[in-house]
Amino acid sequence: MRILGIDPGLQTTGFGVIDAEGPRLSYVASGTIKTSSIATGDLPGRIKVLYEGVREVVARYQPQCAAVEIVFVNVNPQSTLLLGQARGAALTALVSCDLHVSEYTALQMKKAVVGHGHAKKEQIQLMVQRLLSLPGEPGKDAADALGLAIMHAHARVSFEAMSRSTTLERRQHAQFRKGRTY
Amino acid sequence: MRILGIDPGLQTTGFGVIDAEGPRLSYVASGTIKTSSIATGDLPGRIKVLYEGVREVVARYQPQCAAVEIVFVNVNPQSTLLLGQARGAALTALVSCDLHVSEYTALQMKKAVVGHGHAKKEQIQLMVQRLLSLPGEPGKDAADALGLAIMHAHARVSFEAMSRSTTLERRQHAQFRKGRTY
Repeated sequence: MRILGIDPGLQTTGFGVIDAEGPRLSYVASGTIKTSSIATGDLPGRIKVLYEGVREVVARYQPQCAAVEIVFVNVNPQSTLLLGQARGAALTALVSCDLHVSEYTALQMKKAVVGHGHAKKEQIQLMVQRLLSLPGEPGKDAADALGLAIMHAHARVSFEAMSRSTTLERRQHAQFRKGRTY
Repeated sequence: MRILGIDPGLQTTGFGVIDAEGPRLSYVASGTIKTSSIATGDLPGRIKVLYEGVREVVARYQPQCAAVEIVFVNVNPQSTLLLGQARGAALTALVSCDLHVSEYTALQMKKAVVGHGHAKKEQIQLMVQRLLSLPGEPGKDAADALGLAIMHAHARVSFEAMSRSTTLERRQHAQFRKGRTY
């Protein structure tokens, strides 16, 4: 299963592609799509660069599904509106390629990659480097995007294990989690 | 010149298509793209319906340019974020069809259609009906979208008149606007 992670932003959108075979993860590609060369006032122009950039990544690496970060409201409402439009463009590019899109918060991603939700950018970069056996640290935006792809790979493995287990096993598993056994 | 107006929204996006020959305007089509049949939580699904809907309108009516309403921040930041994503999807659909997109505020549209910026929805519907000689009032979202297309037609006529005039005429025009003449 090839997974594309996307960390959307109006100026810089990070992308990261990994292959997941069961619990084994391997790096395919990562990078950023930048719209900073376009004049700030030309929103349709920036949206177009973002849309075409995401579609180019999909065409080149042929992922089978995508994971996109759930963005949050900013203290500045105008920034929230711009970020929303950028995320809308990234989502549109993915669904226009008929990719199934899963959505995760930064908190979920940090827990999956670093182990706790208060991880700093540098810790995410270091853990992504280790988990994917990279020769160097990926950039911050690319690391976040790779982290989202890793998060999705973990979620998928847990989900598959759950669906393979019998009803009894699942019930026992649920009891274990509550700290009790039969 | 065939103009497509778009009034973006996550639940309902209005569209309106008009033909503009100089100052003469004629109605081509209008309607809404609704995503309310999709579960509220499935944002990628709603984005897809919106994107495909706008592209279908472009394919069917073949507009040469588009005018999209500039949306504003909502009192509820979460609504701002959702509206931003919807507008991002609509913009993406338009630029993916290689349409030039102009952006206008609701205030500019109301001034162009009704004559003042505090017009109510009903006044916009009535004036759009009159300006385009429609047999009945268009719906509210469609009327806003048609109003944006009318706004763009007016802006285009003014701009063309400006570019046709000589430098001297333009300077005189500028002086007139300041309330002075030579």
